[in-house]
Amino acid sequence: MKIVETKSELRREIKKYKKDSKTIGFVPTMGFLHEGHLKLIEEAKKENHIVVLSIFVNPLQFGPTEDFDSYPRDRERDEQLALEAGVDLIFTPHVNEMYPVIPSYTVNVSDRVDVLCGKSREGHFNGVATVLTKLFNLINPDKAYFGMKDAQQVAVIEGLISEFHFPLKIVPVATIREEDGLAKSSRNVYLNDVEREEAPMLYKSLLSAANAIKDGEKDVNSIKEKVSQILTNETTGKIDYVEVLSYPELKEISVISGKIIIALAVKFTNARLIDNITLEV
Amino acid sequence: MKIVETKSELRREIKKYKKDSKTIGFVPTMGFLHEGHLKLIEEAKKENHIVVLSIFVNPLQFGPTEDFDSYPRDRERDEQLALEAGVDLIFTPHVNEMYPVIPSYTVNVSDRVDVLCGKSREGHFNGVATVLTKLFNLINPDKAYFGMKDAQQVAVIEGLISEFHFPLKIVPVATIREEDGLAKSSRNVYLNDVEREEAPMLYKSLLSAANAIKDGEKDVNSIKEKVSQILTNETTGKIDYVEVLSYPELKEISVISGKIIIALAVKFTNARLIDNITLEV
Repeated sequence: MKIVETKSELRREIKKYKKDSKTIGFVPTMGFLHEGHLKLIEEAKKENHIVVLSIFVNPLQFGPTEDFDSYPRDRERDEQLALEAGVDLIFTPHVNEMYPVIPSYTVNVSDRVDVLCGKSREGHFNGVATVLTKLFNLINPDKAYFGMKDAQQVAVIEGLISEFHFPLKIVPVATIREEDGLAKSSRNVYLNDVEREEAPMLYKSLLSAANAIKDGEKDVNSIKEKVSQILTNETTGKIDYVEVLSYPELKEISVISGKIIIALAVKFTNARLIDNITLEV
Repeated sequence: MKIVETKSELRREIKKYKKDSKTIGFVPTMGFLHEGHLKLIEEAKKENHIVVLSIFVNPLQFGPTEDFDSYPRDRERDEQLALEAGVDLIFTPHVNEMYPVIPSYTVNVSDRVDVLCGKSREGHFNGVATVLTKLFNLINPDKAYFGMKDAQQVAVIEGLISEFHFPLKIVPVATIREEDGLAKSSRNVYLNDVEREEAPMLYKSLLSAANAIKDGEKDVNSIKEKVSQILTNETTGKIDYVEVLSYPELKEISVISGKIIIALAVKFTNARLIDNITLEV
């Protein structure tokens, strides 16, 4: 496994892969790797000759009140995990390698961003789209891997690749879950014992909605109510949102049809958990 | 010479070139080709195996009061000129091939744009940067050719390529001039006889400034005054701006040093002419 910190070293390695006609699977991360990332790497390894992992805590996607400075970093552990997972190349640039003091060129995203978690994170997806535009140009991957845990991010990046005509394919990877169905997240450790027992209800409420749809339910409001009721009755958490939208357009719908996403966010005492499922009707 | 109108046909042709390890020179235009464009094609032919010409009147770079609808188009003549100039591939997409009804992803440029002609064309360079991001991704050229007649555009694109890490080289091509020094422009025909005789003074005023600098003049204001005086005394045109800036940063300077641009715009009765020179001090 190679580790490079500069664009010029990265370009040199990528050039070699391309010259040897190797396909490149790209897994962009902000580091502090967990099972979700390892699953992305695993999928990338299956489908490509080479796996490139980027580790870069991107200041542009943090809001002024968000936790850029305190975002967890553990480079040694990340490198160990990446090595064990079979990553070929890690790109881990310093901020000043990726951005001039004040970036003068940014990508502006005006669709798919004002819903779900994006509603309360103004500018977040501009930062994501900007850094990915740069990383895609540097790495020139055949495929890029993103977890469906953040389905809105997948939708926004799918749009970016499509509208800007990036010559690569996005591969959304299914959310990894605990045995009881709870979506894996580094935030799960912040749940107290009671909350941890309740938390699988998030996924169960989504499955219950999916079953109702399979049984013929077409009304979006009924679905939302069904999910909300389960969350209210079966957990002590506070609902942040329960949304049913078209996917990947993330537009409001009133009747269930085509590809849709059911997404929710619930606030527990010390953790806000999100989950979602997409289905084709 | 091949002519393609769709992204998928374009990609197929580009793929063939890449497979055969051909280098690609790219000349982006809005059509209605003139000698300036032909010079870009000529340079591209010298330095690459393949020359790709795009003809696309980009709605995103026109302001609401500008002439998108009436912008001159002459596809047959363009194709004939391109053929004679040795272009290998023309990409001439319809607007709906390049943009969805409302583009959701755009490039925002916040530097190098609020000076010179950009001052009065808000959003113009966002449109230029957005369409070039898309064309660069589709065509994946080794080099892209732009005329120094629009030096600000060259500076903005140089920044775009550098900050977004596009794997290509920008080649600025010197302005073509009439024998008397007047920069070639399709707008020159709008000059009346007296104005046409005066117009070479634009370039002469720039040369005169360059000579003063060579002779040791360091003061930016003196240079601007010198140029303005020549324009005022020797033409009936009205000065729009005379600027001396660092290049390609386009920052205001007070003392001449390093790489600079001297740029001007003069309004005649029915034509606004621009010209510039860059020099290293």
